[in-house]
Amino acid sequence: MNTSDFPAPITDRYFEDYRPGFVGEYGSITVAEDAVIEFAKRFDPQEFHIDPIRAARGFYGGLIASGWHTCSLMMRLYADHYVSKVASLGSPGVDELRWTRPVRPGDTLSIRVTILEARRSTSKPDRGFVRSQIEVFNQDKEIVMSLKAMNLFLCRKGS
Amino acid sequence: MNTSDFPAPITDRYFEDYRPGFVGEYGSITVAEDAVIEFAKRFDPQEFHIDPIRAARGFYGGLIASGWHTCSLMMRLYADHYVSKVASLGSPGVDELRWTRPVRPGDTLSIRVTILEARRSTSKPDRGFVRSQIEVFNQDKEIVMSLKAMNLFLCRKGS
Repeated sequence: MNTSDFPAPITDRYFEDYRPGFVGEYGSITVAEDAVIEFAKRFDPQEFHIDPIRAARGFYGGLIASGWHTCSLMMRLYADHYVSKVASLGSPGVDELRWTRPVRPGDTLSIRVTILEARRSTSKPDRGFVRSQIEVFNQDKEIVMSLKAMNLFLCRKGS
Repeated sequence: MNTSDFPAPITDRYFEDYRPGFVGEYGSITVAEDAVIEFAKRFDPQEFHIDPIRAARGFYGGLIASGWHTCSLMMRLYADHYVSKVASLGSPGVDELRWTRPVRPGDTLSIRVTILEARRSTSKPDRGFVRSQIEVFNQDKEIVMSLKAMNLFLCRKGS
């Protein structure tokens, strides 16, 4: 299944369109070594993220991307393909974020999103919460990261 | 309490130094508007992160930082002050990540880290897991984000 199977295009997607059981696959995005190092020098300057030589001798046997870099790359695919462009009110949070395998320079990532739950707000009935499982895969179809994300979306007007 | 109260400096800090009940406060880091927009254009191009004019008319009444940007800024403080420079083996994951208040351009963030649990690995006794609560504050001492992070650290040799 892919983005074309979603009930509505991303520019006209509301809470009602996010239906439990939906599965979408989106991608891909390639992880460049210079981007891994640049991101980590700014935000996560541990040697296995920024120093190829020391990283090669270390625990991971080479450079790996910061977990927050992987989150950010996941978000780009999620924002480009899944999150409504007209009804997104952001996210209250994320649960069970797991970095299950190293992401290395040259890897190509894609995501699979499964809608777990959609619940209209009782206090503010013009909006609803959608809980989604997100899995991030590398080019070998191995899961490198997973998480459960909550998103808040407006309902269609008058619904 | 601050970094000087930690049992060991960050360049000589091992699993044994991470003791449950420790509380450390670290920071600060200021969030620039151009950095908010630059990060979001790359990773999270929703209009309330990238377009000041549309953001001003929208749900948040102005630009806010991507939640992943806030995570990344948190990580910089966490890596600079808390995570061992000699014994870090990375992180298996994070739980209960919550974005509790918007982070806006001009905000100054700091973090408070509380060690919740430290558990030596039974299968690999040269290392151990440390679980920490991380709270991110703005300049008004409001919590803007919180999470529980797991880190894996080597033990001191021969311990």
